Amino acid sequence: MQVTFIWHEQIDGRWSQRQKQVATGGDMTVLRLAREHDIKIDATCGGRGRCGRCKVVVQGPLNEVSDLEAQLLTKEELARGIRLACYARPLGDIQVSIPTGETELLQILTEGFEQAVAVEPDVAKEFVTVDQPVLETPDGDRERLLAALKRSGGQDCQIPLGIMNSLPEVLRKGNHQVTVTRWHNHIVAVESGDTTDELFGLAFDIGTTTVVGGLIDLHQGKELAVAARLNGQAAYGADVISRVEYASNGTSQLKRLQQAVVDTLNGVVAELHDKTGICPKKICRVVLVGNTCMQHLALGVSPTYIARSPYTPAFSHRFDVTAGQLGLAVNPEAPVTFLPNVAGFVGADTVGVVVATGLASRNGRVLMVDIGTNGEIVMSHDGRMVSCSTAAGPALEGAQISCGMRAGEGAIEFVEIGEDIEVRVIGQTRPRGVCGSGLIDLVAELLKVGIIDETGRLQDTSELEGLSPKLLERIRAGEAGNEFVVVWGKDAAHGSDVVLTQRDIRELQLAKGAIRAGTMILQKILGIKDEDIDELLLAGAFGNYIRKESAMQMGLLPQVSLDKVRSVGNAARVGARLCLISQTKLEEASRLAKAMGYVELSGRPDFQEAFMDAMLFPRITREFAR
Amino acid sequence: MQVTFIWHEQIDGRWSQRQKQVATGGDMTVLRLAREHDIKIDATCGGRGRCGRCKVVVQGPLNEVSDLEAQLLTKEELARGIRLACYARPLGDIQVSIPTGETELLQILTEGFEQAVAVEPDVAKEFVTVDQPVLETPDGDRERLLAALKRSGGQDCQIPLGIMNSLPEVLRKGNHQVTVTRWHNHIVAVESGDTTDELFGLAFDIGTTTVVGGLIDLHQGKELAVAARLNGQAAYGADVISRVEYASNGTSQLKRLQQAVVDTLNGVVAELHDKTGICPKKICRVVLVGNTCMQHLALGVSPTYIARSPYTPAFSHRFDVTAGQLGLAVNPEAPVTFLPNVAGFVGADTVGVVVATGLASRNGRVLMVDIGTNGEIVMSHDGRMVSCSTAAGPALEGAQISCGMRAGEGAIEFVEIGEDIEVRVIGQTRPRGVCGSGLIDLVAELLKVGIIDETGRLQDTSELEGLSPKLLERIRAGEAGNEFVVVWGKDAAHGSDVVLTQRDIRELQLAKGAIRAGTMILQKILGIKDEDIDELLLAGAFGNYIRKESAMQMGLLPQVSLDKVRSVGNAARVGARLCLISQTKLEEASRLAKAMGYVELSGRPDFQEAFMDAMLFPRITREFAR
Repeated sequence: MQVTFIWHEQIDGRWSQRQKQVATGGDMTVLRLAREHDIKIDATCGGRGRCGRCKVVVQGPLNEVSDLEAQLLTKEELARGIRLACYARPLGDIQVSIPTGETELLQILTEGFEQAVAVEPDVAKEFVTVDQPVLETPDGDRERLLAALKRSGGQDCQIPLGIMNSLPEVLRKGNHQVTVTRWHNHIVAVESGDTTDELFGLAFDIGTTTVVGGLIDLHQGKELAVAARLNGQAAYGADVISRVEYASNGTSQLKRLQQAVVDTLNGVVAELHDKTGICPKKICRVVLVGNTCMQHLALGVSPTYIARSPYTPAFSHRFDVTAGQLGLAVNPEAPVTFLPNVAGFVGADTVGVVVATGLASRNGRVLMVDIGTNGEIVMSHDGRMVSCSTAAGPALEGAQISCGMRAGEGAIEFVEIGEDIEVRVIGQTRPRGVCGSGLIDLVAELLKVGIIDETGRLQDTSELEGLSPKLLERIRAGEAGNEFVVVWGKDAAHGSDVVLTQRDIRELQLAKGAIRAGTMILQKILGIKDEDIDELLLAGAFGNYIRKESAMQMGLLPQVSLDKVRSVGNAARVGARLCLISQTKLEEASRLAKAMGYVELSGRPDFQEAFMDAMLFPRITREFAR
Repeated sequence: MQVTFIWHEQIDGRWSQRQKQVATGGDMTVLRLAREHDIKIDATCGGRGRCGRCKVVVQGPLNEVSDLEAQLLTKEELARGIRLACYARPLGDIQVSIPTGETELLQILTEGFEQAVAVEPDVAKEFVTVDQPVLETPDGDRERLLAALKRSGGQDCQIPLGIMNSLPEVLRKGNHQVTVTRWHNHIVAVESGDTTDELFGLAFDIGTTTVVGGLIDLHQGKELAVAARLNGQAAYGADVISRVEYASNGTSQLKRLQQAVVDTLNGVVAELHDKTGICPKKICRVVLVGNTCMQHLALGVSPTYIARSPYTPAFSHRFDVTAGQLGLAVNPEAPVTFLPNVAGFVGADTVGVVVATGLASRNGRVLMVDIGTNGEIVMSHDGRMVSCSTAAGPALEGAQISCGMRAGEGAIEFVEIGEDIEVRVIGQTRPRGVCGSGLIDLVAELLKVGIIDETGRLQDTSELEGLSPKLLERIRAGEAGNEFVVVWGKDAAHGSDVVLTQRDIRELQLAKGAIRAGTMILQKILGIKDEDIDELLLAGAFGNYIRKESAMQMGLLPQVSLDKVRSVGNAARVGARLCLISQTKLEEASRLAKAMGYVELSGRPDFQEAFMDAMLFPRITREFAR
């Protein structure tokens, strides 16, 4: 019999569906079968039927539901075909969908970064018994509910209109026993009966390119599911600046951008609903990170002046709204917090990374580089932090590069050059282009063998000695200078050559120069030399997939020994999640953002020089290589 | 030359347009001309060109604008044809529209009720200079604005999203000088430049039948204009109970009723805009009164349980929302306060009356009766107050009466019986029916001459002695008992007779019985006999137009001497206005509502007996009459 596993996996910052079919005799549980084929299913108890976390959605014939499953799964879950992988055993061909939980990203992060974060969200539920109304006292439903809350020791509360509308029915349906969800002195929900066992929140990272959201159980602090969508604003410009320009055309354009990202967020919410079966109306707390512009656009606040000197955002501290105001399809009274920004181009996403990595409380000299469409950099010396932002542009992600493409099927993600060039392609199909990590590999390797010199020039074959003919024949004259054929197009039917041009290299030099110059300035301010750096953290999805060696080779990063470099994945979203489950972390985020220094690079006379310097590739590269 | 005056006047709770054409030689100012013809134009300085209050809108040839007018009127006002009546002099045929200000109602009220109310609204404007943004500090616009407010000694504030959306533009348009409107720690508006000289609010009375709103200058506490509309909910039922029933059918029905009254409110807002030229977006504070059901329906909160024992409202204390939440077409961030209710059927309108009349601080035994679609009664003994509500039904307003009609053209508003019946008709046209005040007159007069006996029976002609033949021939047999022809229909073309039937009298007895029984119960609770009552206040528009003698004759009111009876007009709205201009009054309203006792009549075993008693007409009537 055949078992088809379906799951989601993040590749270069983008979630995509994966599928694998395996044969089995029916003697193994779904969990063991998955492990045999290297397919991840979360099971913290090790498959002993205790944690109830290895939930999968199964279509097809299975063994009967065990007592333990009946105990650990709700009726709704069983009705939806959810089973525990550690008990389910196929009786024929089946399809197994694996919900995406807290997987790779957190595993990377927790390695050495684990923080003892107590689960203490700023929303809480309380089950209260409200006085029945009597003829003698004409107190309203609201007044009796507030009195009951006050009796149980609460502060004075406000009940928003959206809840008042149905309060009479909710009270009577529960025979005057209700569960109240509170956020400080705001009442977020009133539900009939006792629902205190459920408390859900959302943590979002609104990236310029991708929006990722996690549904969090706020009692346990656990991530129940993750979903991601491409930011719907992409249609209005790939990078931040082009979207700011679009939004600055007028209110309707600004509203359009806002609607686009809210639609994206709601798409994520719908997907989380599909994955978990948890009704979005039960979500009563949301924390978002995103760069400063993304936050402005999501709120419909004009970002115009972020893009003009002196680059002033409309707001920098934390911003609270309700889900209803934002148009988010969860409980409309749910408080939604946008984490604080540091400056126009150092946003809450960077603050999220700082929170997630505990940067403020780490000893030593730690450099954090978050390479995305923009590059944000934080340099910390025993918790004293300075930040800056560089307009890296999307070149490092493969955009604006003739052979560049997003990480997806057909993208070269790994390059090595020996006698000839060797590549690894996503999806193991015919290569169609090169994605970000592949590009950095490619340039690093070409630098190693001397095909590119330290100025970034693609050498003529005549200038190159001792290279294999196979490599030499890949170098040819292009439109502006030489070009290097990465993959030969087989014939017209199979598409043309995949080529790296001189102009592509110049784009990459601009991008890597900007980032390197940023780190140089921050190091200069704090008086920290390359060799003094104790730790170098690479954040963002890009940081996960880049080969550290290659990044170092091409001079994107300061010259530190490789064992000091560490990828921290999508730490921004982890930061959002920590602030969602912990009030202490949420307050810390505000303190950090205020305390963090900020350097506006365009205001520094030494930036241009550093930038010119940093655009060059390291001279030592060739010596390294041989 | 001819001058046509156009103004609005309230007749039986309804505002209608009046018009009068007068001839003049052109030697008089518009103000003097108006006074000569008993047309009211507000001019507190007595026409000496000082107060600037006698604004009128003039079409047609006039003398030139005087220096003083140029000073007291804005350019916009002059452009709209607004002149001061004390300076304007016709040079030909003209039309003069008189804006409705605080006129009759307040004049009635202020007579003996004047309260020393300091103008101290809970909204205030502040002109602040915000730091210009600089490259070195990345603080957002919001943060610099809040810092500026804090420098000037303010508490921590919150800026709502609706204001944030345009804050960057507003700041820069005013070169970082802005006027901030605050309500406690909420920011209601941020405007470019200095607008501190303008501060406007709205006071509304949402009646079951009519919605009246006044535009108030919150610096001076003055009413700039008044406008009224029929409550758009009337299409869903004339009385409170039928609307509650409709709303209880489902959410969409509830929403429909809410939309209907919000549309009505917005109609009033538009009319106030027309009358004053003041843009509704400048209105930054709203206070509303209305009965408990009207408040629920305006907020879209289910009133279902108000109509079912134990008659529990969803809320009883004061309710704050924003104009945006309510859908009110003023500044969407303007705080909107619904004054507190006492019980399901003693609403904020009654609280408004209590505030306006200063009932809580009056010495002696004061009875307040507010006769509308419902009848609310408050009995106060040296400020200790007890209230109740009676389902008077709309009979006293002329509804459910065969010959009844609203006060309008063709309505008999006054009746006297001597040899024959004499009537006064609104609009001096042919009578079409009888309005509330006329009905009470009619019954009182019929009681006087003995055509109706104390049980309410219309006597047969054979039982009546010494009546003129003209009266006797008006009595004839009807469908159920006798009927009395008030006005003979001339012929088929001119319509049929106007007739008071036995059933009509029964309806009136039920209504007056309910109100009289309510006062009896409250008097009993406080141990106050009719003769002990020091003052009897008649509130509501109805109280203005009713003839006290007639109300007393028919036993609607306790038997007190007529000089103790006083009409206080639409005091509910005056109460709303006082709370709008004075925080002290607003707080007092909440205190009063909590302190006021409430008696649920249906819960008292002695109510039915009192009601049966009170339905009878007073026996003394006939003796009185002769």
